[in-house]
Amino acid sequence: MIKPQIPKGFRDFLPQKMILRKKIIDTMTAVFETFGFEPLDTPCLEYAETLMGKYGEEGDRLIYRFEDRGGRNVALRYDLTIPLSRVVAMYNDITKPFKRYQIAPVWRADKPQKGRFREFYQCDIDIIGSSSAYAEGELLVMTHTVLQKLGFDSYVIRINNRKVLNALAQKIGLEENHIPAFLRSLDKLDKIGAEAVVREMKENIPLDAASEEIISRDILAGNTSFETIADMVRGIPLGDEGLRELDMICESLAANDVPEKYYSLDIALARGLDYYTGPIFETVVKEPRIGSITGGGRYDSLIGLFTKNSLPATGTSFGLERIVTVMDELGMQKQRTTQTQVLITLFDADLMPVNMQTANMLREAGINTEIYFAADKLKKQMSYAANRGFPFVLIIGPDEARDGNVTLKNMDTGEQESISRSVLVETIKSKLA
Amino acid sequence: MIKPQIPKGFRDFLPQKMILRKKIIDTMTAVFETFGFEPLDTPCLEYAETLMGKYGEEGDRLIYRFEDRGGRNVALRYDLTIPLSRVVAMYNDITKPFKRYQIAPVWRADKPQKGRFREFYQCDIDIIGSSSAYAEGELLVMTHTVLQKLGFDSYVIRINNRKVLNALAQKIGLEENHIPAFLRSLDKLDKIGAEAVVREMKENIPLDAASEEIISRDILAGNTSFETIADMVRGIPLGDEGLRELDMICESLAANDVPEKYYSLDIALARGLDYYTGPIFETVVKEPRIGSITGGGRYDSLIGLFTKNSLPATGTSFGLERIVTVMDELGMQKQRTTQTQVLITLFDADLMPVNMQTANMLREAGINTEIYFAADKLKKQMSYAANRGFPFVLIIGPDEARDGNVTLKNMDTGEQESISRSVLVETIKSKLA
Repeated sequence: MIKPQIPKGFRDFLPQKMILRKKIIDTMTAVFETFGFEPLDTPCLEYAETLMGKYGEEGDRLIYRFEDRGGRNVALRYDLTIPLSRVVAMYNDITKPFKRYQIAPVWRADKPQKGRFREFYQCDIDIIGSSSAYAEGELLVMTHTVLQKLGFDSYVIRINNRKVLNALAQKIGLEENHIPAFLRSLDKLDKIGAEAVVREMKENIPLDAASEEIISRDILAGNTSFETIADMVRGIPLGDEGLRELDMICESLAANDVPEKYYSLDIALARGLDYYTGPIFETVVKEPRIGSITGGGRYDSLIGLFTKNSLPATGTSFGLERIVTVMDELGMQKQRTTQTQVLITLFDADLMPVNMQTANMLREAGINTEIYFAADKLKKQMSYAANRGFPFVLIIGPDEARDGNVTLKNMDTGEQESISRSVLVETIKSKLA
Repeated sequence: MIKPQIPKGFRDFLPQKMILRKKIIDTMTAVFETFGFEPLDTPCLEYAETLMGKYGEEGDRLIYRFEDRGGRNVALRYDLTIPLSRVVAMYNDITKPFKRYQIAPVWRADKPQKGRFREFYQCDIDIIGSSSAYAEGELLVMTHTVLQKLGFDSYVIRINNRKVLNALAQKIGLEENHIPAFLRSLDKLDKIGAEAVVREMKENIPLDAASEEIISRDILAGNTSFETIADMVRGIPLGDEGLRELDMICESLAANDVPEKYYSLDIALARGLDYYTGPIFETVVKEPRIGSITGGGRYDSLIGLFTKNSLPATGTSFGLERIVTVMDELGMQKQRTTQTQVLITLFDADLMPVNMQTANMLREAGINTEIYFAADKLKKQMSYAANRGFPFVLIIGPDEARDGNVTLKNMDTGEQESISRSVLVETIKSKLA
């Protein structure tokens, strides 16, 4: 006998868990589609060389790689962005701008720990072929719309621009090759505090006295507003361009009536990935402390790794696992343990055809209905119904079957009533509403 | 530069392809849920030992296996039935009967060829913990309901019972160990004809003269009705049990008003897998010749491989790829190349806020709306709309923006009209209906 188990970091989702996951995915899908985004699916397995070298050294180590029977080096996809870049390079007849969504699992051979899994879902929206910052504006309006529809309220979409950060680095006088270290430290401002960030920068980056002063005084004093930084980079071409893009993003959010409390320009946002080239953004919730629940940015150089006809690109990703965790922990969902609404009990095997016809009628009206297959004692059938959490149970005895009636029991209140089959659908529908 | 490509036997699904796939999956999901089936998700990677030895020798060879970085032998799932069996063995607090659906990719390291892929979707419904043949009845009513809703008409659900076949083998006097070879040959009746089947049986199975006569005369004469066979196995306990189960299945189909032309008892149906123990079934279409589009059966012994508390189980699987192929080849779907219904063109960058507000209004009414980001020449924007296949385009010039009007162009007829923004939603909705 084989022990039933699954590898660490992998999960089964039983129906009670699936109901919320499905609701979130359905909500996202509906929003994505009203914004004109279309579905894409790509293989779970890619050639290893397609993925390697795109996610940094650490990322490469986490890719699930193996040799298939034909000796090909293949790998489970690590995210949905590189496969998308591969797709637009491969099929150059795709009409641009190409707005697509993809909701699918990805794999990382990470150390499993609380909230970190080896298989998890990403929900991505991307716009390929537009260099307009209205593209980012749209992604953020969509982010806000999804979160509102899921019932989120305490969140902030943090927005910054790599161009502004690079202009700032120029202003400080950093050399090109020290910019990544500068961004990495800056990104930790929220986590480790201003003092530690300055210390880290001093350790890793050769700074002259003037630069050091700017960093300590103007950037990391703890009261640095985005406007202070904006003033510093104005006049530097890259800085002006970055600020103009941020204006367009804010214009989009305002035109779509997104209240200002839901977003803020934040100079301390840097985002880890090396491939971002323009606006970057992420959504953080105040409670629980869990890191960002969405994140993304512009990656205008990535598609150029696969084709000479490079294309501007931008996108964002919703972290399904973290969204589920937040909704669970904040008790944002009061849901049943089942999507099924009615159980029809079996009084006697001879009455099965009546039960089936009744079920048929309910199902055609869109009421999720299960029929019980065995003429077990009613008590056993009722206890099954209670265990499963069905809101309604139908009992049809021989007299009722003859007279065209049914007994409808409300499992939440315990009430039961005998009604005509002809009003059953409307009765249940009005009670469910 | 890395050549953008994917491994053989794997596929990208661009939006034009995804629209039909999604429609089929959504239709199935809706039917499954009205029948009280609930969603389950399991990892794509299982321990190799969970999968090995369950699908026969040929199956074992086709499993994608590899060693992960921690030295664990893992494998990509080969189907959804073994993972389900593993799940019910692992979580024994799942309330039974457990009716679940799962729609997900599976992997087989098969030789890629027309219609055969290394990654493809299975859409499974299973009932765990019921030994009643009403369970099979329900699965087949669901099969019929899904196919009707997808617009299928020329199909037959073939039904048989391994118990009847085993009783028949007893009647003929076959020894237990020759039954698999008998079933394998019988299964080919449709493909290679009666004569070849009899020849194959004679070659592989030691038969005495009496057995040989029964096979040649009664079973494979080409005019063998199910009733002939039923008469032969009546009185054998296993045969009687099998026939009773088939009666219950037919009773279910009749009670659910499934017309008789959509199903038939068929003694030549054997189904390949060794693990079936009771009723078996598959759906074949008359055109195109493509093999079965659904298939399944009862597998009462499978869960016992993972736990001492074995459970009766039955299920069926819809082959998404074949269903798509049939619908494509028969032209059963007349769909647009996009799900997006309206493109809002950009007359002038200053008008972007008006466009966004208009898009907002349409989206809130559930109309899928894309906005164009750049103030390109109108001709370029219209040609983008034509390429994408949007049914409607909106043009909002400065005068219209001022007066609260929009120009609505029907891309199919070429008609265009200037209307008030206040009637835009209802106008588009009535034209789409």
